[in-house]
Amino acid sequence: MLGSFKFSVKAASAEPLKDANELINSVETFIFDCDGVIWKGDNLIEGVPETLDMLRSKGKRLVFVTNNSTKSRKQYGKKFETLGLAVNEEEIFASSFAASAYLQSIDFPKDKKVYVIGEDGILKELELAGFQYLGGPDDGNKKIELKPGFYMEHDENVGAVVVGFDRYFNYYKVQYGTLCIRENPGCLFIATNRDAVTHLTDAQEWAGGGSMVGAIRGSTQKEPVVVGKPSTFMMDYLSKKFNILKSQICMVGDRLDTDVLFGQNGGCKSLLVLSGVTNLSMLRSPENPIQPDFYTSKVSDLLSLTAASV
Amino acid sequence: MLGSFKFSVKAASAEPLKDANELINSVETFIFDCDGVIWKGDNLIEGVPETLDMLRSKGKRLVFVTNNSTKSRKQYGKKFETLGLAVNEEEIFASSFAASAYLQSIDFPKDKKVYVIGEDGILKELELAGFQYLGGPDDGNKKIELKPGFYMEHDENVGAVVVGFDRYFNYYKVQYGTLCIRENPGCLFIATNRDAVTHLTDAQEWAGGGSMVGAIRGSTQKEPVVVGKPSTFMMDYLSKKFNILKSQICMVGDRLDTDVLFGQNGGCKSLLVLSGVTNLSMLRSPENPIQPDFYTSKVSDLLSLTAASV
Repeated sequence: MLGSFKFSVKAASAEPLKDANELINSVETFIFDCDGVIWKGDNLIEGVPETLDMLRSKGKRLVFVTNNSTKSRKQYGKKFETLGLAVNEEEIFASSFAASAYLQSIDFPKDKKVYVIGEDGILKELELAGFQYLGGPDDGNKKIELKPGFYMEHDENVGAVVVGFDRYFNYYKVQYGTLCIRENPGCLFIATNRDAVTHLTDAQEWAGGGSMVGAIRGSTQKEPVVVGKPSTFMMDYLSKKFNILKSQICMVGDRLDTDVLFGQNGGCKSLLVLSGVTNLSMLRSPENPIQPDFYTSKVSDLLSLTAASV
Repeated sequence: MLGSFKFSVKAASAEPLKDANELINSVETFIFDCDGVIWKGDNLIEGVPETLDMLRSKGKRLVFVTNNSTKSRKQYGKKFETLGLAVNEEEIFASSFAASAYLQSIDFPKDKKVYVIGEDGILKELELAGFQYLGGPDDGNKKIELKPGFYMEHDENVGAVVVGFDRYFNYYKVQYGTLCIRENPGCLFIATNRDAVTHLTDAQEWAGGGSMVGAIRGSTQKEPVVVGKPSTFMMDYLSKKFNILKSQICMVGDRLDTDVLFGQNGGCKSLLVLSGVTNLSMLRSPENPIQPDFYTSKVSDLLSLTAASV
């Protein structure tokens, strides 16, 4: 009976981060979620600039990902600038950009159109990539007149419907997107993310992109291609673009079901910070199946724990 | 090896209705779906009045069910009247009524409130049953000002959110309903139906109640209690109210995944009519797992096939 052990095997659970040097030395890229990690609403989280400077000084590549699709990379760049962080546009991966990067990755034809249920960020990224689009905020005031016999026309040249968070969401958009997906042969249904909630203002949680995606899923009975977290599209894209092994990436985030899962789905290391939506009891809850490699209270622990161990 | 047969066992598949008398004599109640069965858009389907008269003359109880929640029972009664059909309000079971009947069945407290994402029919039925409500069409023009720090208040006394088809659907309603379900302890999430499409006008299919329900499911990550077809709530209610055995009911409808499934879920007989959304090749498709007991081209076959067999 050699080799038959009676010890129970415990599922690996997250360890508190103790040796930051070891983690930093084991990877070449850090991917950071933004909200709850770098900032909270409009306020920078303490110690972030110094920590990013330290990681850059050690030659680490830094990438910032966000499921928020309301802004383009350029618009996000301004947010970093306003907060006093020197971050290059190329280092920012918002799900608005991911939607257009996905269309590029599949050689979506330039003579086809994209219908957008979402905000300005998606339109800006589609424009930059040279795609034709319609919808977006422009359709926010459109209404449907339901007279007998009324028929809603739709553009048969729409080959993809991109759905993201949209505060101007209405029935016109639901019906337009539904018609394209149901009636245009091969029309794609792309979701920037399916987040249940988002942080439009820091005063409360707001219904997120998962609402708009859920509505289109309900009327088309189709599942979307998700390009934001926790889908691995952005991770695959980053890995290919910068030629990095995924095991050489550490994903740093505040959410278990998007950030940590995104890191794990991609085969990366993961570090949960408790400065956002997840607290220690949520992490330790027996109902939580998602365990990062490490957890710590905030990003700047990477700096203080490095200094301590030197 | 006696009793071991090599003949392949074929899954029961629907038979064309031949002996209408046998079917009619085997049940005491007929439940009819309306759109695609009794009428199409604003036009009565041929032969319906005579068929209903014949069934009544044989002492059959007739019930009309619809997942459409935009009208109340009383408003539906007017539609029947306009089309020249003598149908009592008590014989009509719209999903608007089902929502308030469900709340009554669970003794939903009269001092609690119901938030409505949906149209007038739901409000009218809640009012008739004596429930307090808010939302509905009134919230169709409300917008959210997303200034920094903006906080949306919600009524902590809302104990149920009822979601049905809503052409005035907007982000305000999504957020209000989401806040109630996420933040009010024990708040119910009730769906009138999850139909992918509906027939607002007869010119095309329109995104249905499944959109609005999908949106709230996406932001709350909760499954609703569905009171319309194919959930058995209405069947259970009818069976209890009229004291009828479910095996003594025949469900007549034009949709496999709502009507026929509704009949089967309830343990009733089922008759598919091909006068609506389902055609013979859809019924016979190997991908269709839902087989009614019988199928026929239209409701009035019940009359012509009875006459033929007498």
